[in-house]
Amino acid sequence: MVGYKEVVPRRPMTRRVTLEEVARAAGVSRATVSRVVNGVASVDENIRHAVEEAISDTGYLPNLAARSLVTRRADAVALVLPDEDRVLGDPFFGRVVRGVMTVTAPAGLHLVLTTTGVGTGEQVVSDLSRGRLDGVILIHTSRNDPLPGRLVDGHHPVVLSARPPSPLPITYVDVHQISGAALAAQHLRHVGRTRLATIAGPQDTPAGQDRLRGFLAAAGTGTPWADGDFTMAGGETAMTRLLADHPGVDGVFVASDLMARGALPVLRRAGRRVPEDVAVVGFDDSSAALDCDPPLTTVRQPTEDMAAEMARLLVRQIEHPDTPVAAVIFQPTLVVRHST
Amino acid sequence: MVGYKEVVPRRPMTRRVTLEEVARAAGVSRATVSRVVNGVASVDENIRHAVEEAISDTGYLPNLAARSLVTRRADAVALVLPDEDRVLGDPFFGRVVRGVMTVTAPAGLHLVLTTTGVGTGEQVVSDLSRGRLDGVILIHTSRNDPLPGRLVDGHHPVVLSARPPSPLPITYVDVHQISGAALAAQHLRHVGRTRLATIAGPQDTPAGQDRLRGFLAAAGTGTPWADGDFTMAGGETAMTRLLADHPGVDGVFVASDLMARGALPVLRRAGRRVPEDVAVVGFDDSSAALDCDPPLTTVRQPTEDMAAEMARLLVRQIEHPDTPVAAVIFQPTLVVRHST
Repeated sequence: MVGYKEVVPRRPMTRRVTLEEVARAAGVSRATVSRVVNGVASVDENIRHAVEEAISDTGYLPNLAARSLVTRRADAVALVLPDEDRVLGDPFFGRVVRGVMTVTAPAGLHLVLTTTGVGTGEQVVSDLSRGRLDGVILIHTSRNDPLPGRLVDGHHPVVLSARPPSPLPITYVDVHQISGAALAAQHLRHVGRTRLATIAGPQDTPAGQDRLRGFLAAAGTGTPWADGDFTMAGGETAMTRLLADHPGVDGVFVASDLMARGALPVLRRAGRRVPEDVAVVGFDDSSAALDCDPPLTTVRQPTEDMAAEMARLLVRQIEHPDTPVAAVIFQPTLVVRHST
Repeated sequence: MVGYKEVVPRRPMTRRVTLEEVARAAGVSRATVSRVVNGVASVDENIRHAVEEAISDTGYLPNLAARSLVTRRADAVALVLPDEDRVLGDPFFGRVVRGVMTVTAPAGLHLVLTTTGVGTGEQVVSDLSRGRLDGVILIHTSRNDPLPGRLVDGHHPVVLSARPPSPLPITYVDVHQISGAALAAQHLRHVGRTRLATIAGPQDTPAGQDRLRGFLAAAGTGTPWADGDFTMAGGETAMTRLLADHPGVDGVFVASDLMARGALPVLRRAGRRVPEDVAVVGFDDSSAALDCDPPLTTVRQPTEDMAAEMARLLVRQIEHPDTPVAAVIFQPTLVVRHST
């Protein structure tokens, strides 16, 4: 099944080349080589090239370790993502990475990618303690994840992608969930719907709570709702229940796109056309919104901007360890497609 | 639009804590603290915890730099991805990351994520030369990218995700493109199609060349084909041309899923039902295959396995700089959906 070909020996590099040899090969001073190796910005571009060529020709292996001993910085931050197929496969992931990189790349910081999983927390804390990482961006931690608390206790630079489930003095970036849900309610009213309902997210998560609260505040506290769990199957079950209890519903806010993907076929099977009979609004603007039939009107978070802000907040903490804990809240927008 | 709240001061860490203070706080010897800091595996789990707690309590900032000076390793490898929305947003990306991590995570290697772009090559070479990276995995480099050549010239550990466009003594992993295209031809014959055609990829790329060669070899050298460019628009144009010249075609192999997405609406508009009138097979099994209407039968690369193999080949080069250059070729499989 697999085969090897094209066998060409690589040049082994065993003898240790000195800085002086590199300087001689490049025709520059030892100090200039040192400046290039240490990434000093003021070195002339041509000279830098000549030195890098000499480094590669001689097989010199300088080590940033020497520099790190002085700066006490790893110049590396970790992005910890949930270890779920759904997240790694979702365009959301790409947007987060791109947003974070707009800040980390120009700053010369390595972006180290990690997913949650057995031992990840230990590894991250150990890397921070041992100076292999300067800080951490955590995406979507679960209620039971001890990592945010450990990072706070250890006074490590950290930024969360959302309000933590339990109060914690930790810096985070979030979307204004309540406003987002209110946008959905206003839009449903605006397209002429009067009998509204909502499929809520899990009520032990901040996003689940706030989206329900925001929708009920805008649509009326007596508005019927069914509990979902942010999964497709949960959306299907909740829609079935809602429709049985409130067959006259003509506008539904589903608190996540993925749940909406589960809910739409239930409406179709019950003979309800979307959007003619029932208008549907989701939340997240994830790939699930585009996979919906019809494509889903949804509440969008400015994911790239939020990710870039997370990176900026982290860099600030790394550079100024006494930076106060902060929360930065972004306004969501409505993306109108064909389900309303 | 944004607001700050919850201002809690972080504990500043300015005074330098010594290893001795950590040892005292943890109630262990200085040597034990050192072993934990240096990641020696034989340290008892409870002791390791106690030391890490002491490190965090005292605010000690050990530095891996000292260790790196000895091992001359960064324990970090870079994954360089193309800087395209399509790649970062494609589930393919998640599968690559997951595959690479199955090897890098247990090995304690940091996976540093980078995208190609202005200055990326310089940065990567500089990081390798300066000991900030041990090696590089390059995904989908373009013909004009000088980076693979520079890495080979610099004797840096590197693995490519596909055969390089120009001959280069570089280690790579690839799918057997020719076999994949042959699978498509055999399948089209198997479902009773006799008037075959293909939309080829760009003929200045190895994948474009091999997929055309493989299909023509299996379907017959006289088989009509049209040139595409691996984009949706290219697939649309090529399908229009093919249909004008060969209106009787009943089976089409499109050399990428994305091109197939562009080709299918052309068939529909021309009154051809898929698969009844024309059966269509794609290549890649990317998200585009699922976005097709109907969902696309396609040739699949074992992306996760291939990514893991890239990581293994890279680790071998890092540990044994005299490892010969190698190419590992994986067999593709056919995923049958509703377009055939």
